Amino acid sequence: MKIGIFGTGIVGSTIGSKLVSLGHQVMMGSRTIDNKKANEWVKANGIHASQGKFSEAASFGEIIFNCTSGFGALESIGSAGEANLNGKILIDISNPLDFSKGMPPSLFVCNTDSLGEQIQNKFPYLKVVKTLNTVNCNVMVNPSLVPGEHDLFMCGNDEIAKEKVNEILKNWFGWKTVIDLGDITNARATEMILPLWVRLYGKFQSPNFNFRIVK
Amino acid sequence: MKIGIFGTGIVGSTIGSKLVSLGHQVMMGSRTIDNKKANEWVKANGIHASQGKFSEAASFGEIIFNCTSGFGALESIGSAGEANLNGKILIDISNPLDFSKGMPPSLFVCNTDSLGEQIQNKFPYLKVVKTLNTVNCNVMVNPSLVPGEHDLFMCGNDEIAKEKVNEILKNWFGWKTVIDLGDITNARATEMILPLWVRLYGKFQSPNFNFRIVK
Repeated sequence: MKIGIFGTGIVGSTIGSKLVSLGHQVMMGSRTIDNKKANEWVKANGIHASQGKFSEAASFGEIIFNCTSGFGALESIGSAGEANLNGKILIDISNPLDFSKGMPPSLFVCNTDSLGEQIQNKFPYLKVVKTLNTVNCNVMVNPSLVPGEHDLFMCGNDEIAKEKVNEILKNWFGWKTVIDLGDITNARATEMILPLWVRLYGKFQSPNFNFRIVK
Repeated sequence: MKIGIFGTGIVGSTIGSKLVSLGHQVMMGSRTIDNKKANEWVKANGIHASQGKFSEAASFGEIIFNCTSGFGALESIGSAGEANLNGKILIDISNPLDFSKGMPPSLFVCNTDSLGEQIQNKFPYLKVVKTLNTVNCNVMVNPSLVPGEHDLFMCGNDEIAKEKVNEILKNWFGWKTVIDLGDITNARATEMILPLWVRLYGKFQSPNFNFRIVK
């Protein structure tokens, strides 16, 4: 499959490399055509890896992963252009983390709104599925880094899009349990567990942990 | 031990009944001396159960459980009086849930502050330990309602108070794993997972579930 990735950071490059390793064609999108990190990622990942502007990655991808920072998400997606994104699934991994006031970070949107909702509301022509944002990027593409059973959350307004994303998470990345919480307003709930994630990361000094819902 | 409980709702009465069943003397505190729910609870729980105003329950208890609604917490504790509370451990179970705008509830304080912190800051003569607020009240006093391994969170500024509360949670209520997150600012993290708890409750149609941290 042809896949577009927004964001050249550690999340985007980790997801992108995993997808290339699975045989997919991946274009990493960024603001400029000569992004240094994107260039390095392309060189390291071979002929199925390419890079371009957000609009080019959007046009290229049959499905889009949003791996930008929270602050960059709305601008990046907006610059990709409706014509290039119309009707496509966007898997939103971004979190509204604000590190500007020091550690631990706060959230720049939460409680009665969420970044996932803001993206869906601003770009209604996208099928936004929020998921993967509650685990470290290495765990995202290799859940067995955390032993035993543990859970991933997913939410979004489009049922068919969620079915497709559920298949991707299970068949490509190896997730066993994906909990569909419901519509995109549930992004409030999953983004708001980031403060606990950050505290636990500080306590464990390792990002290789995850939540399990026991019942 | 003599224990004071603030709040006559389902959380306070469940905690209180458990403590009485363990042989402790429990006074349930409320705003008025003739609180109907407190009277009923006393009648149902025998000679080791009593009720009084917040100030009386505070004076009576060697340790205090705050089981009021989030909105009522600061006023209730304030009305109990510094002389009756000075130096005591207050186990804060309250959550800053706001149901006034319908379901799902939002939080009236979160992100850069928390109810646990507000209580500790307003009443510095208390040793506030935030815990139990992330599970249903029946699970609080009987964790085996949720099968297998699952975790409780705890935070607070006083290490000796946390050790004492850890013993209470394990020896009286049967908790196996209590994760000490650190100081009281970690109440932000544990209060902010309530939105996810509420969504999962709606999905499962049962409150008998809990989080486990897998690593």
